[in-house]
Amino acid sequence: MDTQIFDRIESEVQSYARSFPVLFSKAKGAYLFDEEGQAYLDFLAGAGTLNYGHNHPVLKEKLLAYLGEDYIVHGLDMHTCAKRNFLNQLEEVIFKPRDMQYIVQFTGPTGTNAVEAALKIARNIKGRSNIVTFTNGFHGVSLGSLAVTGNSHHRDAAGVELNGATVMPYDGYMGEGVDTTEYIDKQLSDSSSGVDKPAAVIVETVQGEGGINAASLQWLRNLEKLCKKHDMLLIVDDIQAGCGRTGSFFSFEDAGIKPDIITLSKSLSGYGLPFSVVLMKPELDQWKPGEHNGTFRGHNPAFVTAAAALDHFWRDNTFANEVKKKGHIISEYFGAIAQKYGDQWFTTTGRGMMQGLVCTNGELANEITSEAFRRKLIIETSGADSHVVKTLCPLTISEEDLRKGLRIVSDSVDTVMQARAQAGKPGASSNVGAVA
Amino acid sequence: MDTQIFDRIESEVQSYARSFPVLFSKAKGAYLFDEEGQAYLDFLAGAGTLNYGHNHPVLKEKLLAYLGEDYIVHGLDMHTCAKRNFLNQLEEVIFKPRDMQYIVQFTGPTGTNAVEAALKIARNIKGRSNIVTFTNGFHGVSLGSLAVTGNSHHRDAAGVELNGATVMPYDGYMGEGVDTTEYIDKQLSDSSSGVDKPAAVIVETVQGEGGINAASLQWLRNLEKLCKKHDMLLIVDDIQAGCGRTGSFFSFEDAGIKPDIITLSKSLSGYGLPFSVVLMKPELDQWKPGEHNGTFRGHNPAFVTAAAALDHFWRDNTFANEVKKKGHIISEYFGAIAQKYGDQWFTTTGRGMMQGLVCTNGELANEITSEAFRRKLIIETSGADSHVVKTLCPLTISEEDLRKGLRIVSDSVDTVMQARAQAGKPGASSNVGAVA
Amino acid sequence: MDTQIFDRIESEVQSYARSFPVLFSKAKGAYLFDEEGQAYLDFLAGAGTLNYGHNHPVLKEKLLAYLGEDYIVHGLDMHTCAKRNFLNQLEEVIFKPRDMQYIVQFTGPTGTNAVEAALKIARNIKGRSNIVTFTNGFHGVSLGSLAVTGNSHHRDAAGVELNGATVMPYDGYMGEGVDTTEYIDKQLSDSSSGVDKPAAVIVETVQGEGGINAASLQWLRNLEKLCKKHDMLLIVDDIQAGCGRTGSFFSFEDAGIKPDIITLSKSLSGYGLPFSVVLMKPELDQWKPGEHNGTFRGHNPAFVTAAAALDHFWRDNTFANEVKKKGHIISEYFGAIAQKYGDQWFTTTGRGMMQGLVCTNGELANEITSEAFRRKLIIETSGADSHVVKTLCPLTISEEDLRKGLRIVSDSVDTVMQARAQAGKPGASSNVGAVA
Amino acid sequence: MDTQIFDRIESEVQSYARSFPVLFSKAKGAYLFDEEGQAYLDFLAGAGTLNYGHNHPVLKEKLLAYLGEDYIVHGLDMHTCAKRNFLNQLEEVIFKPRDMQYIVQFTGPTGTNAVEAALKIARNIKGRSNIVTFTNGFHGVSLGSLAVTGNSHHRDAAGVELNGATVMPYDGYMGEGVDTTEYIDKQLSDSSSGVDKPAAVIVETVQGEGGINAASLQWLRNLEKLCKKHDMLLIVDDIQAGCGRTGSFFSFEDAGIKPDIITLSKSLSGYGLPFSVVLMKPELDQWKPGEHNGTFRGHNPAFVTAAAALDHFWRDNTFANEVKKKGHIISEYFGAIAQKYGDQWFTTTGRGMMQGLVCTNGELANEITSEAFRRKLIIETSGADSHVVKTLCPLTISEEDLRKGLRIVSDSVDTVMQARAQAGKPGASSNVGAVA
Repeated sequence: MDTQIFDRIESEVQSYARSFPVLFSKAKGAYLFDEEGQAYLDFLAGAGTLNYGHNHPVLKEKLLAYLGEDYIVHGLDMHTCAKRNFLNQLEEVIFKPRDMQYIVQFTGPTGTNAVEAALKIARNIKGRSNIVTFTNGFHGVSLGSLAVTGNSHHRDAAGVELNGATVMPYDGYMGEGVDTTEYIDKQLSDSSSGVDKPAAVIVETVQGEGGINAASLQWLRNLEKLCKKHDMLLIVDDIQAGCGRTGSFFSFEDAGIKPDIITLSKSLSGYGLPFSVVLMKPELDQWKPGEHNGTFRGHNPAFVTAAAALDHFWRDNTFANEVKKKGHIISEYFGAIAQKYGDQWFTTTGRGMMQGLVCTNGELANEITSEAFRRKLIIETSGADSHVVKTLCPLTISEEDLRKGLRIVSDSVDTVMQARAQAGKPGASSNVGAVA
Repeated sequence: MDTQIFDRIESEVQSYARSFPVLFSKAKGAYLFDEEGQAYLDFLAGAGTLNYGHNHPVLKEKLLAYLGEDYIVHGLDMHTCAKRNFLNQLEEVIFKPRDMQYIVQFTGPTGTNAVEAALKIARNIKGRSNIVTFTNGFHGVSLGSLAVTGNSHHRDAAGVELNGATVMPYDGYMGEGVDTTEYIDKQLSDSSSGVDKPAAVIVETVQGEGGINAASLQWLRNLEKLCKKHDMLLIVDDIQAGCGRTGSFFSFEDAGIKPDIITLSKSLSGYGLPFSVVLMKPELDQWKPGEHNGTFRGHNPAFVTAAAALDHFWRDNTFANEVKKKGHIISEYFGAIAQKYGDQWFTTTGRGMMQGLVCTNGELANEITSEAFRRKLIIETSGADSHVVKTLCPLTISEEDLRKGLRIVSDSVDTVMQARAQAGKPGASSNVGAVA
Repeated sequence: MDTQIFDRIESEVQSYARSFPVLFSKAKGAYLFDEEGQAYLDFLAGAGTLNYGHNHPVLKEKLLAYLGEDYIVHGLDMHTCAKRNFLNQLEEVIFKPRDMQYIVQFTGPTGTNAVEAALKIARNIKGRSNIVTFTNGFHGVSLGSLAVTGNSHHRDAAGVELNGATVMPYDGYMGEGVDTTEYIDKQLSDSSSGVDKPAAVIVETVQGEGGINAASLQWLRNLEKLCKKHDMLLIVDDIQAGCGRTGSFFSFEDAGIKPDIITLSKSLSGYGLPFSVVLMKPELDQWKPGEHNGTFRGHNPAFVTAAAALDHFWRDNTFANEVKKKGHIISEYFGAIAQKYGDQWFTTTGRGMMQGLVCTNGELANEITSEAFRRKLIIETSGADSHVVKTLCPLTISEEDLRKGLRIVSDSVDTVMQARAQAGKPGASSNVGAVA
Repeated sequence: MDTQIFDRIESEVQSYARSFPVLFSKAKGAYLFDEEGQAYLDFLAGAGTLNYGHNHPVLKEKLLAYLGEDYIVHGLDMHTCAKRNFLNQLEEVIFKPRDMQYIVQFTGPTGTNAVEAALKIARNIKGRSNIVTFTNGFHGVSLGSLAVTGNSHHRDAAGVELNGATVMPYDGYMGEGVDTTEYIDKQLSDSSSGVDKPAAVIVETVQGEGGINAASLQWLRNLEKLCKKHDMLLIVDDIQAGCGRTGSFFSFEDAGIKPDIITLSKSLSGYGLPFSVVLMKPELDQWKPGEHNGTFRGHNPAFVTAAAALDHFWRDNTFANEVKKKGHIISEYFGAIAQKYGDQWFTTTGRGMMQGLVCTNGELANEITSEAFRRKLIIETSGADSHVVKTLCPLTISEEDLRKGLRIVSDSVDTVMQARAQAGKPGASSNVGAVA
């Protein structure tokens, strides 16, 4: 595999290419294939972009037909048949059954661009600049999104001051049993707290990059109440947790809340094509024409695959139920690991098929994912110290492949813990055996 | 044409859909087709995204083959065969013949994301936050890019203060014969001018959204010297003017300058697929892994079409020469209009196939483009007051179609001016006849 | 009393003049006198500026002699005999006995200017912009100080965004028994908390404007440890609590901490003359000449009275011990009120002679201070809702006058509570009698 | 002269003490006296604070009487007899004869605090944050004022980004004969210029710290028109140029303009006592009580001397006429120097008794002021490169002392130029002789 060109002229900013130094070629379902045809089971899945797996045949067929017939590929924000079909599917398959009245904005086709638009809407509607964001939240790295993102690795690269946000403790951040919305309420109710009245709260129901921290449904409901009390808009950034990842199309459905603004991207196109939308309550749609624009807003091939995905997976509950079931399988494996080694080494976190094995530190997590990669499993870490081994495998993965991957994780843990024991390193354990 | 769904659930932010209220379906070369099959000649071309026209057959074939064979569509920033091929083409076809040593960064696949990355690089390398930007410049609407963008329509939507930039007069802004780099030099040389020492200058060689203002080659050279003198990086935002639009692959080639950082997007994929890169001199590539990231960085289908475009159009000067020739044709038509009505009504501006007919006000320009649309020509305005009728037709347009479109513009001008004369409106002219 | 001119041409920004609508003329010790010679007992004392009372005779004599002999009144930051004498006194009377090595900077003669300088020092030394500040903190209303101030009444008047600060919970803010430094530590230790690494912490040991909240000595020590752990400078803003108010010259002496930077103003001149200093550890004095300047830095008459005050009051512990004793008397009276009516109505707060009677709401507190003013006692409220009746009487007040004033407070409380009872208003009480 | 204590514990931020390393003791009129009684002629005069000289006997008498009788020294913003008297004098002596209707705000007693208040007023009234400021402008070093100040020496010490201002070219900055208000108008009229609509313009009619640049009266009138055209408030910062310095009480009187907001400080108290006011048109006084506050706002001893100064100097035109006459004398001397050595070495600048000898560089200017100091004249430099020798001598100086000081300057120039000639240094001149 000749990869010299990457060393020669691709930027040092490369990240995943360092963890998985292979030249990939093809992909199908839950598998990536390198140039020699070697298969890798993909538990990363485009960091949550491939909920329906690589190159899903139903979507592929629609896409090839569209492109083959010379339908419009690029049309700025003009009306196209592809867009009309997507909007119709969205209304019929998603909005109506959920009794949702939302307006759809097509932003530049990246998650961060959707977040930028959402923040503008909130600030303009409320005439205030402050946004409440959460510890360990991640919303993107363009400047507006970066200001509401917690990670210092990304923040420090800004090169300018990041303003307009007040960070508050996420659910669980102040210890078990503490409802952090009470602390937030105290600060917002205190006219001398130093927290400028916010325009909005932006929150992930499960923090993808921040360590697969899952907010409780009750906390989300309390947060919604808090927003109403303090006249703040509630923005749910559902870019990673949405599109089925937690077991429902939107990750907040089980909480029964109605966000004012929702951002979607990643798995929305269903095929890995760049695509993003902002959904907002109708009264918030005060945009003037073209105020927020972008060359690739309204990516037509993505309309095609996105519409096909909605049609194929979301007309009834079958798929959602499958996701929930597979989520239990993941819990089962991760729980067994935690139980085997004890919570001084491992705990579990997450919801649905967005789960993490929290390791005691980043070094341990890295050893595990490296060992897994040796076993041809692609799996990544997450969290402030990259200490959470996270599963983001395709939701469409077969139960067999799911168990195969989870067994690789489990075996990798054992291998790492044994090696540590032999090396007299912390993390040793005498109680080593097969899990599940 | 049923377009109710757009009124019902698509956001008011729509822009082009208002100017061209048609439901488009297919597209080929320089033509868009509506649902009924009616053809529209496209002088907008994705706002400069479709330099090779819609759905170019050579690119289409490669794209369909790639997708059909289940090559990787989404691979984050991992090494793929498609990326390798693109990088090789870029090095061989573009860098080597021009003696360019640059490092390539794949950012989120939007122009604004490339600009955000470029600004971060400059600020971090220089350890300073201020960026010199120009009157009437446009670089995108995510917060970092918006701060270096001149248009108040977009700036006012930010909802927060836009900091970190100092606006300076673009070439021509202080009147003819005034070299604005001298004024900039004075301010930067004056320790008490109030201008904080900048990290970089960001400039478009021809301002796309700002009114097709073309900087002179000498001014660009002076600007490069100024950057060296004041230890600033020179960032050329070649997102709209690049990829051949002005008659060379990069718009700055004729000036003989070597920018420190270059942003490309829009026509880079060649097929309207979202795609962006930042090119930087090797010593600037100080990124830490993943500092600037994004889900869709490294869009594989775009690698395929972009590589094909480089291979097909840029192996020799044939294509560039064609562009220059067609540029002259545009000049000829626009010049004739200006001459006919006088420069109190019309002047011309631009370079290569990026040209504008500057109208005395936005109302007049709008009447002309509206009349042109009635004649099935899609053409837009640009500039602070939307007062510049701009041509951004595909570079691949046939000479016949080019003349056809230009004749529509010319006829539309005549119609509008006659109507104004009859209405006793300013803009009237008794001297109406055919141009060219 | 003709006060029309104030209504006619003095700004609406007037504040104390509204609470005490009298034309004052002379003042001596703990008393103010109106134009007709009517005496008012002063428990406000220039909001903590007159710790030695009005026009103290010892200081007055020195001041009159200085001015009478035509010594320099205004000398910018040039060396003068008056400055030399002040510095010598400061070194001998304050620094040496406390084993303090500090450098003295004379800023513009306002508290807020000293804070501005302190923040600049911290930011430049550490090369970071973020400052940790506390809920209910008050540090001034010029833009730099305002950004680290909690009060929204003042913040909202900025007219621009206030950046560069992260507000954290002050001691007691998260409930009794919670050490808020642990929460702060968690956020600072978490690389993904969204809190940018701070340059410094700025804190009042007793929050003057914020409601006379007194930090525990242990909390202050923990805060100092936290600063060391996270490489932050510790700035104690001792403008209101310093110069003896809490029973020692610096308010932090009992805690045994050594702040990196200390700001002093208000009672520093001892005579109500504008005067401020920043004290900093020697290694922090990296100023370039004149970087922080101001016309009235180094106010010579203030040097004279300040030196006299140090000499007269601080050569031994006599004065400090008196302050402590009087502090206990205040506690006794306020404690009796709280006990009489119960903590649903009143609690007490503060340290030394900086104490507050916390009322259940601002309306009640206002009724009490209004009633007290009818009884010729000048006393003000403090806190987010102006709900804390605060004593800031001169430290030099006689025990007799002190008890007289406290009795007025106590009687005023009774009167108000009785009136509320009669009006059937909340705040009623049948158990009304004399306190102490 | 023992000055060790300054080296030992006073901060490195000292500035004037470096230029004039003497221990000063007393002062009277135009003279400072060191500890040994040696007299120094003072052409610095507190950087414009001592327009009436040191310790003027009329003011001194009033001050001593006030302090001696125990009138109130510190009274926060409460009504006092001293304040009433000052306001009455201001209304009668200044406002009425000039037909001025203004409201008076007493801010913290420093110039920068008045500027901070003025900016808040403008931003809140207009609801916009941007302020137009000018190249080489100086308005103070607290954060709000610093953001509208040009000098990088001060700006770089901020430690945070300075936002909310757009710097524009001052009169003369773009070369002779260029009216810079036209360029400003162009940018403000251009919706795509990148200049956010400003709330106000802040300007000095003669730039004190920026190099004694004097705006023409016509330019000031054009600026006022520009403000009206673009709905911006006009703030004249008259802190250094006001109180008679240019030959009228306000420096803008000759221009016939009516600023919306005026800041005064420095010579306002007349005695070197800290004191500042903001004057604003009545409709701008929208302050809420205490929104902008400060411990030393309303400094009573300063009310006394300020009232006395208004009464003594400004009841008729005598004093103003004297200032104008002395201004001509300064022009005469400086003009002679410039003529003698040619404008490649020296030019002149300024208005009234605020004049500068512009040297070809800062080194030359420094040599001249150092030589002058050897001759017991205290005179400072100003401007971006400290290249302007500026006269700020007391307006009350006798003609004899004025000529004496100017002759010292002239002789110092000759000495320096001769020394340069002998050293073969640039700046040499064979044509050396006495001026005037």
